[in-house]
Amino acid sequence: MAKQDRAIRTRQAILMAAAQAFEKYGYQAATITEILKSADVTKGALYFHFPSKEDLALGVLHAQEPPQTVPEQSLKLQELIDLGMLFSHRLQTSLLARAGVRLSMDQQAQGLDRSGPFLRWQEATHHLLAQAKHNGELLPHVNPTETADLYVAAFTGTQAVSQTLTNYQDLQRRHITLQQHILPSIAAPSILTALDLTPARAERLSRLAPED
Amino acid sequence: MAKQDRAIRTRQAILMAAAQAFEKYGYQAATITEILKSADVTKGALYFHFPSKEDLALGVLHAQEPPQTVPEQSLKLQELIDLGMLFSHRLQTSLLARAGVRLSMDQQAQGLDRSGPFLRWQEATHHLLAQAKHNGELLPHVNPTETADLYVAAFTGTQAVSQTLTNYQDLQRRHITLQQHILPSIAAPSILTALDLTPARAERLSRLAPED
Repeated sequence: MAKQDRAIRTRQAILMAAAQAFEKYGYQAATITEILKSADVTKGALYFHFPSKEDLALGVLHAQEPPQTVPEQSLKLQELIDLGMLFSHRLQTSLLARAGVRLSMDQQAQGLDRSGPFLRWQEATHHLLAQAKHNGELLPHVNPTETADLYVAAFTGTQAVSQTLTNYQDLQRRHITLQQHILPSIAAPSILTALDLTPARAERLSRLAPED
Repeated sequence: MAKQDRAIRTRQAILMAAAQAFEKYGYQAATITEILKSADVTKGALYFHFPSKEDLALGVLHAQEPPQTVPEQSLKLQELIDLGMLFSHRLQTSLLARAGVRLSMDQQAQGLDRSGPFLRWQEATHHLLAQAKHNGELLPHVNPTETADLYVAAFTGTQAVSQTLTNYQDLQRRHITLQQHILPSIAAPSILTALDLTPARAERLSRLAPED
């Protein structure tokens, strides 16, 4: 195995161990000693990749940032829908992404800046909505910043309720319902009928998604 | 003080102490010993009101259930808006309600059924939407169960993001934005213009709200 590959694997093993520890104990109570033990790496390797518990947490938080793998679409609202479908799939399949979401909701995590993923989702959503506005996909009154804020908050809650009630099993359906309730308030009517919100699309996109 | 008043005050003092302990340590790590100490009540009184840590948690969770004090409106969608405005105010002013919300999001709380508040919000929202549908306030395709689910999830997320970024200071504004993005997708156009979503209404309602 090349040196670089080994470093990537070590980093990944440490992150998985950290994710499990945060998952089990919460940020506050998790210890580096515990993470070190279950990652089965040297102390030196761990501190090389992550100098502190906070760095470990930021690494785990990073796993729930917007997927970079969404195929480009001419309708930017479709790209926004696809982003949500891909991330819903990711939450169903990736321990790391789930741990990232949980950590971002951990109000006991003192001294940990949990705003990163919210801000990155806000940026990615705003970027797509601003393009959609520029292309005439949105109704004239829509303010991309305000609508992006709303999307991030509503999707966050959709995830939290889906986690609590079905451990993410109904997340694709809930995400589609969310889109059905927001899009008619923001999209030009001629665009609405061109958007694909079917579960079949979510499944097709899932097959493109990379695994951890 | 009458015996009954004293019992109510004791119960309230215990709940506040439990709320603080869950706030500080999370459900899993909080102990009855700690709660007993800070509530300054006898062990007997505590166990009389709450036989277990789970009962204490359920008591705190109860504080975030839908307010019962919403004035009746002829437009049921207005009543739904008012419910959100009142609860946004409650989260800004009540430690107990905030602790309840946090506890319902505490994924580390093993063995605690956190679904109660979600289900009660789902019921209250569904009840109002079903009446709104019956009165012709909703577009024909709207399914009150599905829309109630969506409202609860989206409002939950709005609260979580507002807590993380501004400790609930921007919650009224975020709640109004949420309504502006969902109502046009579900309400009959003639109803839309009759709904009052102004911050002034939120303030007026806040003055009616009971304090802890």
